[in-house]
Amino acid sequence: MDIVILGAGNVGSYFGKALKDKEHTILQVYSLHLDHAKVLAKKLNCSATDDISKINKKAEIIIFAVTDHALEDLVKKINIPEAIAIHTSGSTDMNIFKGHFNHFGVLYPVQTFALTDRVDWARLPICIEGSDAKTFTKIKKLALCISSKVVKMNSTKRMTLHTAAVFANNFTNHLYVLANEILKKDHISFKLLLPLIEQSSINLQHESPSNLQTGPAKRNNLVTIKKHLKLLSDSPEFAKIYKMMSAAITEEHK
Amino acid sequence: MDIVILGAGNVGSYFGKALKDKEHTILQVYSLHLDHAKVLAKKLNCSATDDISKINKKAEIIIFAVTDHALEDLVKKINIPEAIAIHTSGSTDMNIFKGHFNHFGVLYPVQTFALTDRVDWARLPICIEGSDAKTFTKIKKLALCISSKVVKMNSTKRMTLHTAAVFANNFTNHLYVLANEILKKDHISFKLLLPLIEQSSINLQHESPSNLQTGPAKRNNLVTIKKHLKLLSDSPEFAKIYKMMSAAITEEHK
Repeated sequence: MDIVILGAGNVGSYFGKALKDKEHTILQVYSLHLDHAKVLAKKLNCSATDDISKINKKAEIIIFAVTDHALEDLVKKINIPEAIAIHTSGSTDMNIFKGHFNHFGVLYPVQTFALTDRVDWARLPICIEGSDAKTFTKIKKLALCISSKVVKMNSTKRMTLHTAAVFANNFTNHLYVLANEILKKDHISFKLLLPLIEQSSINLQHESPSNLQTGPAKRNNLVTIKKHLKLLSDSPEFAKIYKMMSAAITEEHK
Repeated sequence: MDIVILGAGNVGSYFGKALKDKEHTILQVYSLHLDHAKVLAKKLNCSATDDISKINKKAEIIIFAVTDHALEDLVKKINIPEAIAIHTSGSTDMNIFKGHFNHFGVLYPVQTFALTDRVDWARLPICIEGSDAKTFTKIKKLALCISSKVVKMNSTKRMTLHTAAVFANNFTNHLYVLANEILKKDHISFKLLLPLIEQSSINLQHESPSNLQTGPAKRNNLVTIKKHLKLLSDSPEFAKIYKMMSAAITEEHK
């Protein structure tokens, strides 16, 4: 297939490389920033542009690997209706393409886009969707070039999964940020928590999270909770999160 | 050393086995529940009791591997002042033993006590403290029987570490519980999130959490945030946590 990639960020880069490795042809990379497009285009041995009107009309597949914010606008500006349009967003309905393209779909990798060089993409799930059976089959073939875990999922369920991923990844990461800041004040290394964090991730492979809950809030141990809140007393924002999370855990286990 | 273990839960069991393997003698296991004490005592080839007055006076070391809640009361009831008293609590000051024992200290393993069979204890940090240099040296030797990562840490810092661990473990686990519940409503498997969770744990070994933050709240992407909140509209408790965590992340990155 002849493919154009819109967006030269982590997703665009990875998809471009993975698809080229599996003998697809990347025709062109587009980015708002020509220098970004050129860096990726060089790796993929193709042309680069920052001009929407110059997007290669021979594209059989156009992958929209751009931010959710840029996506809607970009869809409207591209007039190559016979190409298959694919976006990579967790929270955007497939039908964003309706009326602009005849065939379209979604390739959503369930992953965080921090430190992507270290990601083992081959084992991360990719959720796919297609506007019709033929398009779906083509998208599935593309997905299998990227990952062995390809899951059919409609736009409604994908939004649910994306919301859950925000809890499981973005919010947990913020709790690590807070833990790190608490430790820093006392010059304690965050590294001391890494075996605990790693163990928790391993435990989730064997047991559901509700069976893995531990800690003072679960036992409604008010003495320990009070000690922790005293320690957090000059960080009201930390104390607020501590109280809300503890109350939610106690409620869950009462 | 001749050791008595108070508490037959996860910590008591593990410490008992690890210390016996390294040629210490476990004299006795005490538990409020005689049947629990007996199960562990059988494994350690020692006696069991649920009677505080019958605790073996020949003990050189008494390990208080009981809940924070039970600890204070138990310390007061045991009258073997020449034994070294050691507790395993993250949030309890070493000086809880003062006036009751002449020599005392702490062995605090930085770990979650869910699924302990799967824990690789040898690489999890143990924070130790001793009432005097000689006692500290003895406790350090015991700690090195259990883990290769032994860290000297006073009671104030240990409390800070324990508080940070509540954020990094107990609260993150609750977010996994919420993610799981969100998915369940739409019959989506939590397993789809496991590679993402595992990747996040790997990323933390290479980068500080504040550099790993991603997601709509970081970018203050109000369109996506609004979509997620709409999806959570019949779960006000979930929406409340979503809003608070998102606001905290946006604030951190503005």
